[in-house]
Amino acid sequence: MSNSRPCCSGLFSGKLTQSEAVDLAAIFRVLGEPVRLQMLSLIAIQPNQEVCACELVEPLGLSQPTISHHLKVMYEAGLLDKQRRGTWIYYRIITEKLITLKEAI
Amino acid sequence: MSNSRPCCSGLFSGKLTQSEAVDLAAIFRVLGEPVRLQMLSLIAIQPNQEVCACELVEPLGLSQPTISHHLKVMYEAGLLDKQRRGTWIYYRIITEKLITLKEAI
Repeated sequence: MSNSRPCCSGLFSGKLTQSEAVDLAAIFRVLGEPVRLQMLSLIAIQPNQEVCACELVEPLGLSQPTISHHLKVMYEAGLLDKQRRGTWIYYRIITEKLITLKEAI
Repeated sequence: MSNSRPCCSGLFSGKLTQSEAVDLAAIFRVLGEPVRLQMLSLIAIQPNQEVCACELVEPLGLSQPTISHHLKVMYEAGLLDKQRRGTWIYYRIITEKLITLKEAI
Protein backbone atom coordinates (compact mmCIF):
# COMPACT_ATOMS: atom_id res chain seq x y z
CA MET A 1 0.00 0.00 0.00
CA SER A 2 1.39 3.42 -0.77
CA ASN A 3 1.25 6.08 1.90
CA SER A 4 1.66 9.72 0.99
CA ARG A 5 0.51 11.14 4.33
CA PRO A 6 3.01 12.63 6.72
CA CYS A 7 4.24 10.77 9.77
CA CYS A 8 1.90 9.60 12.48
CA SER A 9 -1.62 10.11 11.31
CA GLY A 10 -4.39 8.33 13.18
CA LEU A 11 -3.15 6.71 16.37
CA PHE A 12 -0.45 9.32 16.83
CA SER A 13 -1.88 12.48 15.40
CA GLY A 14 -4.19 13.39 18.26
CA LYS A 15 -6.56 11.87 20.76
CA LEU A 16 -8.35 8.91 19.21
CA THR A 17 -12.11 8.94 19.83
CA GLN A 18 -13.72 5.87 21.35
CA SER A 19 -15.58 5.18 18.14
CA GLU A 20 -12.39 5.41 16.03
CA ALA A 21 -10.64 3.10 18.50
CA VAL A 22 -13.48 0.55 18.28
CA ASP A 23 -13.41 0.51 14.46
CA LEU A 24 -9.65 0.27 14.27
CA ALA A 25 -9.40 -2.44 16.94
CA ALA A 26 -11.99 -4.52 15.08
CA ILE A 27 -9.76 -4.66 11.99
CA PHE A 28 -6.70 -5.43 14.11
CA ARG A 29 -8.60 -8.31 15.75
CA VAL A 30 -9.58 -9.80 12.40
CA LEU A 31 -5.90 -9.70 11.36
CA GLY A 32 -4.83 -11.22 14.68
CA GLU A 33 -4.92 -14.79 13.34
CA PRO A 34 -1.82 -16.05 11.53
CA VAL A 35 -3.78 -18.10 9.03
CA ARG A 36 -5.73 -15.03 7.87
CA LEU A 37 -2.48 -13.17 7.20
CA GLN A 38 -1.21 -16.17 5.24
CA MET A 39 -4.45 -16.14 3.25
CA LEU A 40 -4.10 -12.45 2.39
CA SER A 41 -0.51 -13.06 1.39
CA LEU A 42 -1.54 -16.01 -0.82
CA ILE A 43 -4.32 -14.00 -2.47
CA ALA A 44 -1.91 -11.14 -3.17
CA ILE A 45 0.60 -13.38 -4.98
CA GLN A 46 -1.96 -15.01 -7.29
CA PRO A 47 -1.49 -13.91 -10.92
CA ASN A 48 -5.09 -12.63 -10.99
CA GLN A 49 -5.05 -11.67 -7.28
CA GLU A 50 -8.07 -13.77 -6.38
CA VAL A 51 -8.70 -17.21 -4.90
CA CYS A 52 -11.52 -19.59 -4.12
CA ALA A 53 -11.45 -21.52 -0.84
CA CYS A 54 -10.57 -24.67 -2.80
CA GLU A 55 -7.25 -23.19 -3.90
CA LEU A 56 -6.12 -22.55 -0.30
CA VAL A 57 -6.69 -26.08 1.03
CA GLU A 58 -3.38 -27.48 -0.17
CA PRO A 59 -1.04 -24.55 0.60
CA LEU A 60 -2.49 -24.02 4.08
CA GLY A 61 -3.17 -27.65 4.99
CA LEU A 62 -6.58 -26.76 6.44
CA SER A 63 -10.07 -28.05 5.70
CA GLN A 64 -12.22 -26.16 3.24
CA PRO A 65 -14.88 -25.27 5.88
CA THR A 66 -12.16 -23.75 8.09
CA ILE A 67 -10.78 -21.74 5.18
CA SER A 68 -14.28 -20.63 4.14
CA HIS A 69 -14.94 -19.47 7.71
CA HIS A 70 -11.83 -17.27 7.79
CA LEU A 71 -12.58 -15.87 4.31
CA LYS A 72 -16.12 -15.04 5.47
CA VAL A 73 -14.82 -13.22 8.58
CA MET A 74 -12.47 -11.14 6.41
CA TYR A 75 -15.26 -10.49 3.91
CA GLU A 76 -17.57 -9.29 6.69
CA ALA A 77 -14.80 -7.04 8.03
CA GLY A 78 -14.54 -5.36 4.63
CA LEU A 79 -11.08 -6.76 3.89
CA LEU A 80 -12.21 -9.01 1.03
CA ASP A 81 -14.62 -8.71 -1.86
CA LYS A 82 -16.30 -11.82 -3.28
CA GLN A 83 -17.82 -12.92 -6.54
CA ARG A 84 -19.67 -16.15 -7.22
CA ARG A 85 -18.73 -17.84 -10.49
CA GLY A 86 -20.41 -21.21 -11.03
CA THR A 87 -19.88 -23.44 -7.99
CA TRP A 88 -17.16 -21.31 -6.44
CA ILE A 89 -16.88 -17.98 -4.68
CA TYR A 90 -13.76 -16.04 -5.58
CA TYR A 91 -12.25 -13.61 -3.08
CA ARG A 92 -9.98 -10.64 -3.69
CA ILE A 93 -8.46 -8.08 -1.32
CA ILE A 94 -10.12 -4.70 -0.86
CA THR A 95 -7.18 -2.43 -0.29
CA GLU A 96 -9.06 0.54 1.25
CA LYS A 97 -9.39 -1.00 4.73
CA LEU A 98 -5.73 -1.93 4.77
CA ILE A 99 -4.74 1.55 3.62
CA THR A 100 -6.85 3.01 6.46
CA LEU A 101 -5.04 0.74 8.87
CA LYS A 102 -1.62 1.59 7.49
CA GLU A 103 -2.36 5.29 7.69
CA ALA A 104 -3.59 4.95 11.27
CA ILE A 105 -0.27 3.58 12.50
CA MET B 1 5.60 6.60 11.46
CA SER B 2 7.30 7.44 8.21
CA ASN B 3 7.43 4.85 5.48
CA SER B 4 9.85 5.16 2.62
CA ARG B 5 9.39 1.63 1.28
CA PRO B 6 7.54 1.04 -1.94
CA CYS B 7 4.03 -0.32 -2.02
CA CYS B 8 3.12 -3.60 -0.46
CA SER B 9 6.04 -4.86 1.53
CA GLY B 10 5.42 -7.69 4.01
CA LEU B 11 1.94 -9.09 3.65
CA PHE B 12 1.83 -8.29 -0.03
CA SER B 13 5.39 -8.68 -1.20
CA GLY B 14 5.50 -12.46 -1.36
CA LYS B 15 4.36 -15.55 0.46
CA LEU B 16 4.39 -14.92 4.20
CA THR B 17 6.06 -17.73 6.17
CA GLN B 18 4.13 -19.30 9.03
CA SER B 19 6.57 -17.87 11.55
CA GLU B 20 6.22 -14.32 10.09
CA ALA B 21 2.44 -14.69 10.16
CA VAL B 22 2.51 -15.80 13.82
CA ASP B 23 4.67 -12.84 14.88
CA LEU B 24 2.62 -10.32 12.93
CA ALA B 25 -0.72 -11.71 14.11
CA ALA B 26 0.45 -11.49 17.73
CA ILE B 27 0.98 -7.72 17.41
CA PHE B 28 -2.36 -7.31 15.62
CA ARG B 29 -4.08 -9.20 18.47
CA VAL B 30 -2.52 -6.95 21.12
CA LEU B 31 -3.81 -3.92 19.19
CA GLY B 32 -7.25 -5.50 18.80
CA GLU B 33 -8.63 -3.87 21.96
CA PRO B 34 -10.01 -0.33 21.61
CA VAL B 35 -8.77 0.77 25.03
CA ARG B 36 -5.18 -0.13 24.14
CA LEU B 37 -5.36 2.03 21.02
CA GLN B 38 -6.75 4.88 23.13
CA MET B 39 -3.85 4.41 25.56
CA LEU B 40 -1.27 4.58 22.76
CA SER B 41 -2.97 7.68 21.42
CA LEU B 42 -2.96 9.28 24.90
CA ILE B 43 0.73 8.45 25.44
CA ALA B 44 1.61 9.94 22.06
CA ILE B 45 -0.05 13.29 22.82
CA GLN B 46 1.64 13.78 26.21
CA PRO B 47 4.17 16.64 26.10
CA ASN B 48 6.91 14.21 27.26
CA GLN B 49 5.33 11.23 25.45
CA GLU B 50 5.10 9.06 28.56
CA VAL B 51 2.48 8.21 31.14
CA CYS B 52 2.04 6.32 34.37
CA ALA B 53 -1.09 4.22 34.87
CA CYS B 54 -2.38 6.86 37.32
CA GLU B 55 -2.58 9.47 34.56
CA LEU B 56 -4.87 7.29 32.42
CA VAL B 57 -7.52 6.57 35.06
CA GLU B 58 -9.44 9.79 34.55
CA PRO B 59 -9.33 10.12 30.73
CA LEU B 60 -10.24 6.44 30.19
CA GLY B 61 -12.66 6.01 33.10
CA LEU B 62 -11.14 2.65 34.00
CA SER B 63 -9.65 1.30 37.22
CA GLN B 64 -5.91 1.50 37.71
CA PRO B 65 -5.47 -2.32 37.85
CA THR B 66 -7.27 -2.63 34.48
CA ILE B 67 -5.07 0.07 32.96
CA SER B 68 -1.92 -1.50 34.44
CA HIS B 69 -2.92 -4.86 32.95
CA HIS B 70 -3.26 -3.41 29.42
CA LEU B 71 0.01 -1.48 29.78
CA LYS B 72 1.74 -4.71 30.87
CA VAL B 73 0.37 -6.62 27.85
CA MET B 74 1.66 -3.90 25.50
CA TYR B 75 5.00 -3.83 27.33
CA GLU B 76 5.35 -7.61 26.97
CA ALA B 77 4.49 -7.35 23.27
CA GLY B 78 7.36 -4.91 22.79
CA LEU B 79 5.10 -1.94 22.06
CA LEU B 80 5.96 -0.03 25.23
CA ASP B 81 9.10 0.63 27.22
CA LYS B 82 8.88 1.27 30.97
CA GLN B 83 10.91 3.03 33.63
CA ARG B 84 10.29 2.99 37.36
CA ARG B 85 10.64 6.41 39.03
CA GLY B 86 9.75 6.41 42.73
CA THR B 87 6.34 4.84 43.26
CA TRP B 88 5.32 4.94 39.60
CA ILE B 89 6.20 3.12 36.42
CA TYR B 90 6.26 5.38 33.35
CA TYR B 91 5.51 3.95 29.92
CA ARG B 92 6.50 5.25 26.51
CA ILE B 93 5.90 3.91 23.01
CA ILE B 94 8.61 1.89 21.27
CA THR B 95 8.11 2.84 17.66
CA GLU B 96 10.05 -0.04 16.05
CA LYS B 97 7.25 -2.63 16.43
CA LEU B 98 4.69 -0.21 15.01
CA ILE B 99 6.99 0.61 12.10
CA THR B 100 7.37 -3.14 11.41
CA LEU B 101 3.60 -3.44 11.42
CA LYS B 102 3.10 -0.43 9.18
CA GLU B 103 5.66 -1.72 6.71
CA ALA B 104 4.03 -5.16 6.69
CA ILE B 105 0.70 -3.79 5.46
